Amino acid sequence: MPLTANDPTRQSWLEVPKNSDFPIQNIPFGVFLTRDDIITIGTRIGNTAIDLGALHQLGYFKGIELTDDIFLQDTLNDFIADGRKTWRLVRNRISDIFLKDNPELRDNTEHKERVLFTMNEIEMQLPVDVGDYTDFYASKEHATNVGSLFRDPENALLPNWLHIPIGYHGRSSSIIPSGTPVRRPNGQTKPGENGTPGFGPSKLLDFELEMAFITTASNALGRRIPIKEADEHIFGLVLLNDWSARDIQAWEYVPLGPFLGKNFASTISPWIVTLDALHDFKVSGPKQDPEPLPYLKQGEKKNYDINLEASIKPEGGKETVVCRSNFKYMYWSMVQQLAHHTINGCNVRSGDMMGSGTISGPTPDSYGSMLELSWKGTKPVQLSDGSSRKFIEDGDTVILRGYCQNDKVRIGFGDCAGKVLPARKI
Amino acid sequence: MPLTANDPTRQSWLEVPKNSDFPIQNIPFGVFLTRDDIITIGTRIGNTAIDLGALHQLGYFKGIELTDDIFLQDTLNDFIADGRKTWRLVRNRISDIFLKDNPELRDNTEHKERVLFTMNEIEMQLPVDVGDYTDFYASKEHATNVGSLFRDPENALLPNWLHIPIGYHGRSSSIIPSGTPVRRPNGQTKPGENGTPGFGPSKLLDFELEMAFITTASNALGRRIPIKEADEHIFGLVLLNDWSARDIQAWEYVPLGPFLGKNFASTISPWIVTLDALHDFKVSGPKQDPEPLPYLKQGEKKNYDINLEASIKPEGGKETVVCRSNFKYMYWSMVQQLAHHTINGCNVRSGDMMGSGTISGPTPDSYGSMLELSWKGTKPVQLSDGSSRKFIEDGDTVILRGYCQNDKVRIGFGDCAGKVLPARKI
Repeated sequence: MPLTANDPTRQSWLEVPKNSDFPIQNIPFGVFLTRDDIITIGTRIGNTAIDLGALHQLGYFKGIELTDDIFLQDTLNDFIADGRKTWRLVRNRISDIFLKDNPELRDNTEHKERVLFTMNEIEMQLPVDVGDYTDFYASKEHATNVGSLFRDPENALLPNWLHIPIGYHGRSSSIIPSGTPVRRPNGQTKPGENGTPGFGPSKLLDFELEMAFITTASNALGRRIPIKEADEHIFGLVLLNDWSARDIQAWEYVPLGPFLGKNFASTISPWIVTLDALHDFKVSGPKQDPEPLPYLKQGEKKNYDINLEASIKPEGGKETVVCRSNFKYMYWSMVQQLAHHTINGCNVRSGDMMGSGTISGPTPDSYGSMLELSWKGTKPVQLSDGSSRKFIEDGDTVILRGYCQNDKVRIGFGDCAGKVLPARKI
Repeated sequence: MPLTANDPTRQSWLEVPKNSDFPIQNIPFGVFLTRDDIITIGTRIGNTAIDLGALHQLGYFKGIELTDDIFLQDTLNDFIADGRKTWRLVRNRISDIFLKDNPELRDNTEHKERVLFTMNEIEMQLPVDVGDYTDFYASKEHATNVGSLFRDPENALLPNWLHIPIGYHGRSSSIIPSGTPVRRPNGQTKPGENGTPGFGPSKLLDFELEMAFITTASNALGRRIPIKEADEHIFGLVLLNDWSARDIQAWEYVPLGPFLGKNFASTISPWIVTLDALHDFKVSGPKQDPEPLPYLKQGEKKNYDINLEASIKPEGGKETVVCRSNFKYMYWSMVQQLAHHTINGCNVRSGDMMGSGTISGPTPDSYGSMLELSWKGTKPVQLSDGSSRKFIEDGDTVILRGYCQNDKVRIGFGDCAGKVLPARKI
């Protein structure tokens, strides 16, 4: 099926500001509360939110096999389970409906009133009910930095890292949409001289600049997803801030991995940008040496050129971009991650989320966490208001952004933001 | 509210075989398919399954605040979310309905036909939709054994272990009910001399004898569950076999913890035995030294005296009990686990599952995994058919069982069984 919605010459009758993340070539999917407090599945063009539930009721998806209530749900899980053919038909149809020359909805005031919302009339929700959340550790630069900081700079990468897309399970319950405040966690930290562990609010609160992909219902328990088919099972991508309390994490993580240092909150951007919308931004990833085992061998261009940045905005102050990175730096690609995740027969369901791990690039200004940017607190990061940060302070808002751009089109993700509130008293 | 259902003098008009796990004092909750292929929530007395959806439609729960469809669901999540007061009212009412002297249902042949099933007329399902699955590592004997086998017998326990109920996130999607076959996983293993990782079916497939508790909707994100209130948020317990591929696990688990070595399957017993039914079997756990931090300080008797065993049944052969342990050996109790899990504000939902970790006792015959029983393959375990096992072989069925017993009553869990099928060819 052709990706006609990707045609860069297409223009919408809806206004799209210059440098918008959401031209008619994007057509992301999300879930929002409307001005009437109804929850619906929607998309966005420019700064207009579009109620797909209403569009479907009005007959605009005629000819596409969809259940009546497919968009009148509080998550995208069922729509995603319909599979890639359906996603493409729907995305292409939406593109057609909003095409400059198509009068069908454009000239129907009554329909437009039911279907269109300004962004401040709606409230974005979590787009999916995440059944399982897996986080990978797939940036070589990040793994090397962390290995240098916590273990041995001479042997920063552990022996398995170049053979396995290392991953672990995260917590689904504490995944929140952009805009939800994040409470600084309390917890145990390494004992001081008296041998008793420390306890209280984390002193080393950090962000992690990540992306995450959302899967469709993929494989039965006991079956794998061959790497050649892995693409088909990925619906789309979001930005992910995998908040981390480094002091809690450092004390708890041996031998079973990070737990309370991570599971207090993970923020995602609310619009899922489809893999189809990102199709024209495919690039090759870093050369893999040693060669991966056969089940991890991929074809060309399995990475995506997505510019990423992280900003800190102090309470009442201005934003400072503290990191500029790119999704293309990932050593292990998404298809390798999915093929690896299922090689043992682990089943993947619609709405599962798989994070990339922190995406650090080769230069110090591209490191995707404060741990790396401030080199474990030894090099404070300067903000534009004259203050500096080793880690994240109460009142700070951390904002992740990401977009693809070529000479014709820009496809972006919108903001992935969260403000840190002071810890609760115990 | 009194736990009248626990009264050991109560007898049912339903037949209960001697040594049944399911006397009228148990009343566990589960989900099953009936002979008419209808899914319903039910309970069990002796070898009779009881359709609670039908009982409710027939008016037997009059006076208890329940939605009409609360038992006509394919999971217990909503019923569990109703909270402890409701669970107790329902359990006491069921006990009353099946009391020897109560003719209401006993003498109503038509109602009995709608409500009662023999066990071979039904098919047990997963009792809950597990939102998040956490596995702890709470047996000191197990942690010491594993530390001795893989690290240093002189320093077997890691420094954090006596301060923190160590836990990590597992995979929800691959949790399966007793009776579902388990496919031997394929995967990567440590490189041999040529430096290339091994690949193929796991050679070191293991069981882990665990129990797991199921939570109710407990706390909002950012709030903790104080240890004194933790009991209230635990609905009940199941047996859990946390299948493990030791060779895959050994290669992948540093630094982020076990992943594909575990997430190919986790088997649970299908009946959730409520904490209320286990009330008379509370005991004190091992002395905790050093003293835990204040948020982990518990009252008396937070452990439960539950006899546990694991058997291996070769294809076409007889069962051999290879391990006898007890849930009371847990160093960290369930309330400590729940208080710790939420101290950072991590939110717990209805239907979340928290495993104990392998429950090993002090003696070699009480070790809860083949890794420990065969001491990493150096001491093969003898089976009654003359064969021996270092790890689990294709065709073997592993069966976990558990029960509490005093001089008046026995409360058990039924079987938690899974048969191992050969790995799929890649």
